[in-house]
Order: sequence, then structure tokens, then C-alpha cells
Amino acid sequence: SNAHRIAVIAGDGIGKEVVPEGLRILETVASRFDCAFEFDHFDFASCDYYQQHGTMMPADWKARIGGHDAIFFGAVGWPETVPDHVSLWGSLIQFRREFDQYVNLRPVRLMPGVPSPLANRKPGEIDFYVVRENTEGEYSSIGGKIFPDTEREVVMQETVMTRVGVDRVLRYAFDLAQRREKKHLTSATKSNGISITMPYWDERVEAMAKAYPDIRWDKYHIDILTAHFVQHPDWFDVVVASNLFGDILSDLGPACTGTIGIAPAGNINPERRFPSLFEPVHGSAPDIAGQHIANPVGQIWSAALMLDHLGETTAAEAVVRAIEEVLARPEYRTRDLGGNANTAQCGKAIVDAL
Amino acid sequence: SNAHRIAVIAGDGIGKEVVPEGLRILETVASRFDCAFEFDHFDFASCDYYQQHGTMMPADWKARIGGHDAIFFGAVGWPETVPDHVSLWGSLIQFRREFDQYVNLRPVRLMPGVPSPLANRKPGEIDFYVVRENTEGEYSSIGGKIFPDTEREVVMQETVMTRVGVDRVLRYAFDLAQRREKKHLTSATKSNGISITMPYWDERVEAMAKAYPDIRWDKYHIDILTAHFVQHPDWFDVVVASNLFGDILSDLGPACTGTIGIAPAGNINPERRFPSLFEPVHGSAPDIAGQHIANPVGQIWSAALMLDHLGETTAAEAVVRAIEEVLARPEYRTRDLGGNANTAQCGKAIVDAL
Ligand SMILES: CC(C)[C@H](C(=O)O)[C@@H](O)C(=O)O
Ligand SMILES: CC(C)[C@H](C(=O)O)[C@@H](O)C(=O)O
Repeated sequence: SNAHRIAVIAGDGIGKEVVPEGLRILETVASRFDCAFEFDHFDFASCDYYQQHGTMMPADWKARIGGHDAIFFGAVGWPETVPDHVSLWGSLIQFRREFDQYVNLRPVRLMPGVPSPLANRKPGEIDFYVVRENTEGEYSSIGGKIFPDTEREVVMQETVMTRVGVDRVLRYAFDLAQRREKKHLTSATKSNGISITMPYWDERVEAMAKAYPDIRWDKYHIDILTAHFVQHPDWFDVVVASNLFGDILSDLGPACTGTIGIAPAGNINPERRFPSLFEPVHGSAPDIAGQHIANPVGQIWSAALMLDHLGETTAAEAVVRAIEEVLARPEYRTRDLGGNANTAQCGKAIVDAL
Repeated sequence: SNAHRIAVIAGDGIGKEVVPEGLRILETVASRFDCAFEFDHFDFASCDYYQQHGTMMPADWKARIGGHDAIFFGAVGWPETVPDHVSLWGSLIQFRREFDQYVNLRPVRLMPGVPSPLANRKPGEIDFYVVRENTEGEYSSIGGKIFPDTEREVVMQETVMTRVGVDRVLRYAFDLAQRREKKHLTSATKSNGISITMPYWDERVEAMAKAYPDIRWDKYHIDILTAHFVQHPDWFDVVVASNLFGDILSDLGPACTGTIGIAPAGNINPERRFPSLFEPVHGSAPDIAGQHIANPVGQIWSAALMLDHLGETTAAEAVVRAIEEVLARPEYRTRDLGGNANTAQCGKAIVDAL
């Protein structure tokens, strides 16, 4: 058959509550558009699994999900029982590295009906992508400690950038900018302070830009760039950034558009040698887990990103339109957006809109 | 005499336009309060100096300004003639390192009359300090490149945290929190991603907190913390951060309160073994340099921080009040705040208010 094979991992906390809503949307898509899905559910990459097995994932995890077309992911993390750096490095970061998901793609868009903390911003004015390098850079595990437990204690950690690693994410970002109307790329740097890796990043951006003469591009140091996100979010179209800077910008961007509660992310292997992973940005949210009040929009928007990646662009656009339609109506908003709807009511409204 | 000996370095660009306004204020302070200053002007730490001498500073720079009580600094940087990493690492970063100015103190305060990009925020609601580590961390110059100009090219840079370096800035931040009404400290981390240095930072915060049982403290990962700056700036009182994270937060914070154009910074050696340096956050602003329209408030507010450091707290408070008074009146606002006043008109208004 032509069915897309999807590995479903709900993970922890509200992941278990919002993933079902995402699946409902995908089932509706299958019934309305000419496409089909096969869902395989996995219980690993969760802190429950860790408590039972002492590891976040089974030894053969790559074999078990490596053949799927995509991974539909909820959230991981339950710090009460497993420290974050254990649960995250044992799952999410593994997927990104081992499946070479070197692009983390995060749309930043002001949606109708979502109150923005910024004064006088209207839907349509803020609409850009953060393209984050997702495998190297500041997230290396190289380093250590010397003279432990003494006054001389020193801790070091390496930032690692490779030509291959930097160039491929830049190419993805320039390609994306080329498909967009504004054809504008912004590079996040800090070459005035981080004096070795960041000047290298700038060098590679400059070199790559030569191959895209029709793209208008600029760069800002990360400090002033965060200021511009708040003061001039309308300036941006495609923002490309290192792993850490992209992490920061892709929380700050959604915050400027009202909430990180609805933002989606694609962890993408553009060559499709490995499955890409789609997840909401919000995480497992232990504080509201189990109450069935979590906002499912981030998970559903992630489904749209996944559809786009799978080539189902018409369906992807329809899902985003359905989200916009529902967000515009106060009665379907969840508590985080000032409404009274619960997770299922909001999810069902989007299904109906579709 | 009891005069405070101040080394004055105007530097580049608008530094040369706003430093005179800062000095006017200090002269007014001397005439109104019981204190005196001796100003020595230096032309080094500027790109003009670099063009004449091939270095940013003379070999004996430490001897020439190391005996002063403080450095009153404008801005450095003129990328058209000298690359930023040369001008900045040859001056500002040298001062911070060699004079062991291990605290970078930056107030974030919503001032009357300054329009905030955030909706519905009023003066008084946003009023906190960013305490940034200023000598180590991500700003190390250790690292390099291997396999240059090949596909195998790899660039590495070390982040370095020492127990001494981390503990002393944390102690400063906890002490500051203790002197404030809310007694609340927030630590910026990223221990879920930056898996060696940042867990160490967290460990030291936890250890230090034990010595301050009356301080309420919390920590946030830098990604969500930037989101909270936009969505909940009223949550914060004292925010302590590593060199890079502090750099980011101390541009983002002022952006949330309207403009980085008026924000001041103190680069402080708390033990006073070396002179501390006071500068506006805005930098040399080549785009508006020479037009005499730069906003002098950042420089004047820096003078207030310097007065405070020199023990002239009454004068320091009077200067901040004078700034607030003038900002509240549209006719004295400079162009960046939507007004028509030039640099000297705004500066003179603050002198008069004082
Ligand atoms: C100019 C640059 C090196 C500097 C820094 O990153 O420290 C500046 O941004 C600052 O915050 O003082
Ligand atoms: C949980 C954490 C390790 C992760 C990251 O920093 O990459 C998260 O913040 C994200 O953005 O996906």
C-alpha cells in the first residue's frame, strides 16, 4: 500500500494527552484526502519506560523505528523521577543525532485569536521560520571537570562546528528562503564575543550566500537579535541559527506571538535517509499533566508539519487553516489561552473545522 | 583631595557624542553634592587609535588607567575600518579580564514616558537587575580549527567555568538580592542541553543558595527564560547568568522596557582592586554617528551606576530621578524615542532637572 508508516511516541506528561488529538486529525485527513497512515505505537522514550527498564530506550530502538516514514512525538521529561539531562539525552537528543535530523524547523506565526504580549501586532505581520542546526555546535558532549571538589575546580565543554554540519543547515535555510515570497535570510551570530566558532559560522554564511544571489541576507549578534524579535518581529522571514541560538530563538519567537503552547517543531533529515520527528515545542508540562486541559494545537500543528514533509501539502495547509479557524473562536480555546475548553473539545473542534 | 579620579574614554562613533553629556552631569553633581572628580581623558580603546598605531591600546595601558577609581566609557567599534572582534577583544574585553571586572551589572527598568513594545505594562512593573558573569564561560579564546579549507574542516571552542569564577558572581547576585525588597533570585541555565558546564552552574547555585536561606530562588532554561522576559517581566528581581546568557538577557530585558538606547552597564570589580568600567549598552552606532542625535540617557544612567559604585548613593539616586523626570516630558526625547530633541538638548534637560 501507499500508507505512510508513522511511529507514534507519546512520551511523558501531557504528551500522552495531546498525541491522541494529533492522531484524530491524521485519521480525519486520511478520510478526507487521498492518503493513508499506518500507526505503530511505542512506549519507550518515556520516563515510565526508564523506571521499568533503567534506560530510556531499548538497545534495538533504531531497528524498531528506523524504517518508519516519520516519528510523531509528544513530549519527554518527568524531572520528579528522572533528571532532564538523562531523559532528554537518552531519547530526543539521540533521535536528532542518530537519525541525522540536522534541521530543526520551527514556524513563528501570529495566529488570529491568540493574544500577543506585544502591543499592536496583527496576524499576518509576524510570519517566519527559525531554522536551527540540530546535531552539533554548542550541544556537544565533549568536555569534563578537573580538580573536582576543590577551589581549583575547572569545568570545560567544547562547542564543535564542522564544515559539513554548518553548510548543510545553511543550504536548507537558503533553499527555504528561496521558496518564500520575501526571499530574506537572517543569520544569528555572536562573532564579536564568541571569537572562534562564530566567526567561522559567519564565514560559511558568506560563502553560501554567493550561491543564492537573489536572496537578501543579513546577520545580527544574538543579543540584539533577541531585542529585534520583540521590537521588530515583522523584519524576519527565515532565521538560521546554531543549535543553542536556534533553541533560544525558537522559544522567544513563539512567546512573541502569544504562547509557546501552540508552537510545533520538525526535526528533519531532509534527505529522508532516516525518519524525521515532529513534536510540539511545549514539552511534558508536569504542572498540568493528567488534568486534560493541555492545549493540543502544538501537537496538531506538528501533524501539519509532518504532512508537509511527507509530501501531503494540500492536507498540511488544510490542517493549518482549520487551526486558525478554531483559534479565532473563543469557545474552543483552552485555559492557557484564557478559554474553558478542555484538550478533547479543542481537538474535536479542529477535526470538525477540517 | 577627596576627588574621585575618573579615566574618561569616549571611544568610537556616538561614544564621542554622549560622553560629554555624561561629564556635564557629573560636573553638576560635583557642584550640588559634596563630592569632586578629576577627569583624565584617553584617546586609546578606539578605532581611530588603531588606525594610527596598529593596536587598540598602548602597551602600558594598564599602568595609565589602573590607578583610577573608575573608567567612564562611551563605546567602541567601527567595523568599516576595524573588524569588531579586533576592536572589542583589544579593548573592552581586555578591561573586563585584566581589571577582573567579573560582574556585569545591568538594570532593567520600565521608565515613565518610554513606550514599551509589550502591551499593557506600566512603569514600576518591570524593575530588575541582570547580573552577568563577565570574565570566563563561553567567552574563552581557547580553541581552533583543524583541516582548514577542506570538507573535513572542524572548528572548536571551549567554554570554561571555574569554581572561583562561578561562585564569586553568584555571591554578588545573592548579596544584591538580599539588599532588595523582593529577595528573589533567578538563575539562567541550560543544563538540559549544554550537558557539562551548565549542570555545574546549577550545582554551584544550589550550593550558594544554602548560605542565603532568606532568598527565594528559581532557575529557568535560557530558551524559556527569554520567553518569560516577554510574557512575565514582572516575575524578576535579580537574574544571574553566565557570560553569554547574561549578554543575551541584558539586551532582551532593555528591549522589553522599550529600548536598549538608554540602558547602562557597570563592569564591576567588587573588591575595588582594579577600576570598574561604566558604559551604555548601545555601542558606537555607526549608522547615526556624527549627527548629534544619539540618546545620551544610557551614558548618563551609566554615570549614576558609577556614582553608586563610588559610594555617592544620594547623587546616584538624584541622577536617576532626573532622568525619569525628563523622559516623562515629550519635548526632551531624542529621535529614537519618537522626539525631536538632539543629544545636547536632552542632556541639558537632565542637568536642569538635577
Ligand atoms: C561587543 C560585545 C563583545 C559585548 C559582549 O558580548 O560582551 C557587548 O555585546 C556587550 O554586551 O557589552
Ligand atoms: C529539552 C531540550 C534538550 C531541548 C533542546 O534544548 O533542544 C528543547 O528545549 C527543545 O528545544 O527541543
